[in-house]
Amino acid sequence: MDSSFRKIAVIGSGAVGGFYGSLLAKSGCEVSFLIHSDFEKISKQGLKIESIWGDFGVLPLSKGRVNQDKISNPNYKNSYQAYFVNDSKDFGSDVDTILICLKSTENKQLAYLLQAFQDISHQKKLQIVLIQNGIGQELFIHELLPFAKVFAGLAFLCSVKKSPHCIQHIDYGELTLAESQPDQTACGIGSELKDLGNLFQKAGIPVNLEDDLILARWKKLFWNIPFNGLSVLLNAETDQIVQNQDSLTLVRDLMAEVQLAAKAEGRLIPTSFLEDRVKRTFSMKPYPTSMKLDYENGRAMELDAIYRSVLKRAQSSNTSLPNIKFLLHALEYLEKNKSIDKK
Amino acid sequence: MDSSFRKIAVIGSGAVGGFYGSLLAKSGCEVSFLIHSDFEKISKQGLKIESIWGDFGVLPLSKGRVNQDKISNPNYKNSYQAYFVNDSKDFGSDVDTILICLKSTENKQLAYLLQAFQDISHQKKLQIVLIQNGIGQELFIHELLPFAKVFAGLAFLCSVKKSPHCIQHIDYGELTLAESQPDQTACGIGSELKDLGNLFQKAGIPVNLEDDLILARWKKLFWNIPFNGLSVLLNAETDQIVQNQDSLTLVRDLMAEVQLAAKAEGRLIPTSFLEDRVKRTFSMKPYPTSMKLDYENGRAMELDAIYRSVLKRAQSSNTSLPNIKFLLHALEYLEKNKSIDKK
Repeated sequence: MDSSFRKIAVIGSGAVGGFYGSLLAKSGCEVSFLIHSDFEKISKQGLKIESIWGDFGVLPLSKGRVNQDKISNPNYKNSYQAYFVNDSKDFGSDVDTILICLKSTENKQLAYLLQAFQDISHQKKLQIVLIQNGIGQELFIHELLPFAKVFAGLAFLCSVKKSPHCIQHIDYGELTLAESQPDQTACGIGSELKDLGNLFQKAGIPVNLEDDLILARWKKLFWNIPFNGLSVLLNAETDQIVQNQDSLTLVRDLMAEVQLAAKAEGRLIPTSFLEDRVKRTFSMKPYPTSMKLDYENGRAMELDAIYRSVLKRAQSSNTSLPNIKFLLHALEYLEKNKSIDKK
Repeated sequence: MDSSFRKIAVIGSGAVGGFYGSLLAKSGCEVSFLIHSDFEKISKQGLKIESIWGDFGVLPLSKGRVNQDKISNPNYKNSYQAYFVNDSKDFGSDVDTILICLKSTENKQLAYLLQAFQDISHQKKLQIVLIQNGIGQELFIHELLPFAKVFAGLAFLCSVKKSPHCIQHIDYGELTLAESQPDQTACGIGSELKDLGNLFQKAGIPVNLEDDLILARWKKLFWNIPFNGLSVLLNAETDQIVQNQDSLTLVRDLMAEVQLAAKAEGRLIPTSFLEDRVKRTFSMKPYPTSMKLDYENGRAMELDAIYRSVLKRAQSSNTSLPNIKFLLHALEYLEKNKSIDKK
């Protein structure tokens, strides 16, 4: 597959998918965004990206309309174009790459959303890139589209939706990419992964390729497991968590359990990595985690992807993770109680 | 020592000591309350008790003034009398019983407060009754007054200070009494303990005598360890905690650790006791725990008596209590962060 031009379908066009998809459109790919809510508005106005890397707009393109120069919108200084569809059946059969950036809490929708690609995936090599937190969700994609090549992206990105059609990219943006195998073994850095890396890099996104997806996932969980949950439970930002000795002890205890769980899957992560994550958080700009934002805005928290999946995997190897279990139960209580409050 | 008349010094004249001390004054004992803040006001007006067992007042008595009938206060329907002192040196040498109802967070004051009794405790059999949450604080009393007899009271009481001189008794009131030994062994129910029980019972307080203080303390911790901490961490009342499956799991996990820690000290508590505590909480009137009230009002939480003491005792037997440790660290974070908020 050519690394410089692709026909990309974006499923989950929010603060992550809307941002990366727009950068790919800007770099010359043919991008189609699936939009559910606010389709009327976005299909007319397109998306606006306010990024620390430069602002730009992505204007709506109609199938058949080719002269991109004719379209401009005075609201956007630099404008590019993309398709906006309301149903995954409208993506069209020429798609070669699917970027899935749904929040993991929405994964139940994928069985329906990927139906449209079932025939295509038999005819040609479809590539899927799943950008999500957590661990193990790729298995579901392998089941749904067994003939597709599955890659996973781990985003280190701070972006928010400012309004239905405006995404603000606040900080970071690096993407770690790795290939996924149904048996979850490491499969190295092949030419397809390299091409995929080039695609994102050409779009201005810093890319890091990893030969073992599961190891990369565990490494990301080293940060997500303590900081996402504790930020909700202690109503704290990341800087407050690392600056207090007691919460820092909780961070270290939780990280040590992630280390144990990773080890049970043959992924040895040294304790120096743990300390490095702590140090990096000290020097990070303080910000509320995505889970804290979800909780405060009454959205579902990614408890399945980040916590339940880890406990389930650890159970199969009889690895005891009491701190992670405690944190999950407390978060479950808070989630249920929050929704009671809202009733 | 006569069970029906005693000269009692009350140290810690708050919602617990003020209530029990006033009942003892009402029953005919000579009670002296140590009052620090609001001494001017209370030494003139006395204490007002608004109790589900009946309202009454305790009016100030001056040393030397004996005709109690002359004193009355139109604010109190039923009035009794007691002394109010501002310094423990003013208790006088005829005291035979010291009721200590300080919050455990104030125990550092005891070294000074009990100095006044050091000579007396050599001359006669002084009895100390320590009514506090937690475990092991009696050891400090044994050290300070090695010649005194030490008893401990575990209060199952719901009372609050409505104003500096008014205590509201909302619910319950039962007192479990046991004798304390410096080596923390069980010492049975002797005649002195029985007399003490009669003293409180005569004052209208339901009393339960136990032959093993440490076992009684562990049994009380079965409730205090989960419900005090979780009520703060989850911002929940007791009914919310038992009605949610996730927080109930946390309760059971924490109780199982208390069971383990008790077992390490030779106190076997059956799992049926654990379930009984859960069931009793289901049928209890929902109320915020004392720790939640402390936290919300910016007062120190009893983390030493309820959590650190337990972890310390468990450490000496290499008993691992990860859930209790997690809860303590989270509470420590919240306590420090709360005081930062208040600055």
